[in-house]
Amino acid sequence: MKIVALAGGVGGAKLADGIYRLIPKVELTVIVNTGDDFTHFGLNISPDPDTVCYNLAGMENPETVWGRGSEQWETMDLVKKLGGPDWFSLGNRDLATHLERTRRLNEGEPLSKITCDFCETWGISASVLPMTDDLVPTLVKTDQGLLPFQEYFVKLGTKPEVNGFIFQDVESAKPAPGVLSEIEKADLVVICPSNPWVSIAPILSVPGIMEALKRKIVLAVSPIIGGEAVRGPAAKMYEEMGLQPSALSVAEGYDDLITGFILDQKDQALIKDIVSSFDGQIWILQADTWMKNRQDRIRLAGEVVIFGNQLIKEV
Amino acid sequence: MKIVALAGGVGGAKLADGIYRLIPKVELTVIVNTGDDFTHFGLNISPDPDTVCYNLAGMENPETVWGRGSEQWETMDLVKKLGGPDWFSLGNRDLATHLERTRRLNEGEPLSKITCDFCETWGISASVLPMTDDLVPTLVKTDQGLLPFQEYFVKLGTKPEVNGFIFQDVESAKPAPGVLSEIEKADLVVICPSNPWVSIAPILSVPGIMEALKRKIVLAVSPIIGGEAVRGPAAKMYEEMGLQPSALSVAEGYDDLITGFILDQKDQALIKDIVSSFDGQIWILQADTWMKNRQDRIRLAGEVVIFGNQLIKEV
Repeated sequence: MKIVALAGGVGGAKLADGIYRLIPKVELTVIVNTGDDFTHFGLNISPDPDTVCYNLAGMENPETVWGRGSEQWETMDLVKKLGGPDWFSLGNRDLATHLERTRRLNEGEPLSKITCDFCETWGISASVLPMTDDLVPTLVKTDQGLLPFQEYFVKLGTKPEVNGFIFQDVESAKPAPGVLSEIEKADLVVICPSNPWVSIAPILSVPGIMEALKRKIVLAVSPIIGGEAVRGPAAKMYEEMGLQPSALSVAEGYDDLITGFILDQKDQALIKDIVSSFDGQIWILQADTWMKNRQDRIRLAGEVVIFGNQLIKEV
Repeated sequence: MKIVALAGGVGGAKLADGIYRLIPKVELTVIVNTGDDFTHFGLNISPDPDTVCYNLAGMENPETVWGRGSEQWETMDLVKKLGGPDWFSLGNRDLATHLERTRRLNEGEPLSKITCDFCETWGISASVLPMTDDLVPTLVKTDQGLLPFQEYFVKLGTKPEVNGFIFQDVESAKPAPGVLSEIEKADLVVICPSNPWVSIAPILSVPGIMEALKRKIVLAVSPIIGGEAVRGPAAKMYEEMGLQPSALSVAEGYDDLITGFILDQKDQALIKDIVSSFDGQIWILQADTWMKNRQDRIRLAGEVVIFGNQLIKEV
């Protein structure tokens, strides 16, 4: 079975990792948001691809889920002593990824090729594809003005009130090599429980990806549980964008795309509204979607894939 | 007493450090070669200013004299595992310097200001001035073609045969703020035992510096002892440039500049030739110039400064 997962950072990486570890193995391709990518200290940093890769390689920081495990902070501590900014954490191990990626990007190599080689080094047998090799930096429209994503997200701790998003130059971006063909070959596409506004929307905005997905059976897992995001500003963004933060709003956001929707058992009461909003044209699975550990990831992934298999037979 | 020292990396840093630690204290400004500066992994690296600063701060690696003490290599080890180049060593502590310098350079700050701030953080009371804030990369003409300095020096281990040097764009470079005025105010200028071809020549090539030095009492310490360099390719370069590697050749290279010359006691036999080459217009001090430890640095520095003081009275 061939699965394509769309993922941003932590939430997406968790489910992608669960799918990756299913037995029997599925053939997995993860298409990852690169809207969060930015330059810091002269280094090209790709937070979401790194989070996905570190998790698939089992070398993530088990507490934060982003960053690397057994990390050391000596370099960052000394940067801080020199008066440098420490709002974005760069561990000694993580730095190796940024250094070598920056070196190769500066030599003109595409991010997708570099990511593929890193995955090989890290023993990852899934494909991890950045959504594009072009620069599509996410800008957040806020009450404090237009902010580069990491400034909004990390430096200002998502405090500014959001009123829109710009995926800069996305209209001229091309899907990275393999993105469209992997979608084409997929039996099932899973939209991971990543932030719909800033993790999934950038992927869907890359010209060609939406069209390719529309020919597929697509499932989405809600990142909103009981009106709240497990982590990050997704719920806050729904509110600030004038929408109820709920699994219903998530499903409606994907309404022209999804065949199936997975929500948390806490949100059982919303099922009726979702079915009605989709005029009955939606399959819904209720599950324990909060992934607290690796076992949770694999369990949820198993339920999602079994659900997907049913839809493949039904639809 | 106000001393300006001209220095490159290891040899220069050692003597500058010795002068810095003299008691009673002298007022020291070190003007440092930036011809070795280069970009690696997207980071701006200034090897000679760093070596000088790390030594003045007493935080150098005591074995190599370049790099930082108690260094960790985790990042570099992981870069190597990713297939990245490891010919230029970047320790975790050292990386902090490169990261923060790169960040500030990318924001448009001049190297001299950044270096000054770093010195303050590191508790260095001497002034360390890069020779220029402009880019003046040294290119080495060799039998393997024109090579960027670090490629020749570190990557190829100084193996290619040298036939010339280019200090790119030096004709349009400006001395960094303070360089000319510090020379102007100096009682004594000491050319440290750095490589005359690639450490001192770049400094002397920056427009304005040579003219300012010619109004001063200038001493040079030979980096060649008994026909050999303590470290690095200086002797090899003299041979390949068609000159005898000797203290005599060093002195002759500075002939329109120096009032005094310090050579090693091993080279006593050359004194006659040097005096004759300078038509008697040179003062010579013979000393133990091989600095094996910090005590050696201070001892040699003391002898150089006493010698300089004599010349100030005599000349």
